[in-house]
Amino acid sequence: NIIEVIIQNQQDENKLKGKKVLITAGPTRETVDPVRFFSNRSSGKMGFALAEVAHRWGAEVTLIAGPVVIDPPSGINYVSVTTAQEMYEAVMNHKNDQDIIIKAAAVADYRPKQTHEHKMKKHEGNLVVEMERTNDILKELGEQKQQEYLVGFAAETKDIEYYGNKKLEKKNLDAIVMNDVSSTSTGFQSDENEVIVLTKRGLKEAIPQSSKAKISERLFEIFIEEKQGEKS
Amino acid sequence: NIIEVIIQNQQDENKLKGKKVLITAGPTRETVDPVRFFSNRSSGKMGFALAEVAHRWGAEVTLIAGPVVIDPPSGINYVSVTTAQEMYEAVMNHKNDQDIIIKAAAVADYRPKQTHEHKMKKHEGNLVVEMERTNDILKELGEQKQQEYLVGFAAETKDIEYYGNKKLEKKNLDAIVMNDVSSTSTGFQSDENEVIVLTKRGLKEAIPQSSKAKISERLFEIFIEEKQGEKS
Repeated sequence: NIIEVIIQNQQDENKLKGKKVLITAGPTRETVDPVRFFSNRSSGKMGFALAEVAHRWGAEVTLIAGPVVIDPPSGINYVSVTTAQEMYEAVMNHKNDQDIIIKAAAVADYRPKQTHEHKMKKHEGNLVVEMERTNDILKELGEQKQQEYLVGFAAETKDIEYYGNKKLEKKNLDAIVMNDVSSTSTGFQSDENEVIVLTKRGLKEAIPQSSKAKISERLFEIFIEEKQGEKS
Repeated sequence: NIIEVIIQNQQDENKLKGKKVLITAGPTRETVDPVRFFSNRSSGKMGFALAEVAHRWGAEVTLIAGPVVIDPPSGINYVSVTTAQEMYEAVMNHKNDQDIIIKAAAVADYRPKQTHEHKMKKHEGNLVVEMERTNDILKELGEQKQQEYLVGFAAETKDIEYYGNKKLEKKNLDAIVMNDVSSTSTGFQSDENEVIVLTKRGLKEAIPQSSKAKISERLFEIFIEEKQGEKS
């Protein structure tokens, strides 16, 4: 009944009260010249949904996002970036004293070694673009981890559980959320998603296809429960 | 007064009556793997504004657009594509019997030589991406030109008039619309633009900063006048 709904909402509103949550979202864009760029497919919708739920549940939310076309949720600290380097710097500036850090952004692993100030003229034949590695933000967060609960995302098209487990361990994460981006009804651009969560404490849960908001709620329930378990 | 506005609108509605107009818009996206891609900065807004004006003025409009986040105008023939190759094929399928063809899309000049079916794993050190040329759609349209009025766009950051004139001649265009994409208040993502038009018949007109809809109206006035002049 309605009383139960109101009570449930009030309880939800306090689930992350007094907590600080940092979320990254969207792609990054690596410039070749003023017109051309390299990027990753990512609408930012999953990260934005996570930020909305964290805010609704009472957290102090910082959302660092690459170039996306969706409007930032109100009531949060929104930091807009373009490149992987800018994303790295923003995360390093905000990472301290966070209770939960979720890296949902699809940060470019490589950027062109050379950026041209003016538009490159095309010419006959092939073009070779030399790319260099960007900073591995998640790896660095894992290495410097203190009390915060650290969550990574993995977008894979095959062997997703194998790669998920590997990343969980290698990057010193508390949890990894894996989505199969080869599905068309979920993932990129979609308002829905379907994920598998693996945690360091040994949880494995498949969250069936649902709105990114519903998925976010279930994810935070898991993270909060595991974080509380840690202390006791 | 209101009567004059109504008469003007009725006159506008007939300016392209019975004409066929083909417009390309937006970027193309060239796949590296299921997550990574290479693209151009282009919101598609200029091409969409042109399509809306042509439709409002009575034309039968075909709009071929790469991946954009704006909604297609209603009442037109909308063809959605992703890659330069798909854009090329769609244009070639629709180019016959057009009265005006406007190539406002920012088609990638290069695409990765190799496309990976599954997400590439990153590794230590640099990555070399070999790129090959895509088909030059505008050049081919110029070579096969018949009765249609052919318009290209040029996005430059320097020497824009020099490059515009060169492209006008080399691609056998009737007109070229040049914007300086180094400006932040106009161009990419913006709802406003500021352009210079050069035509084969020798017109040079700077259209001052205005909405992309207003710019589109002035452009069609020029194209219609020149096309009518051709016949007489």
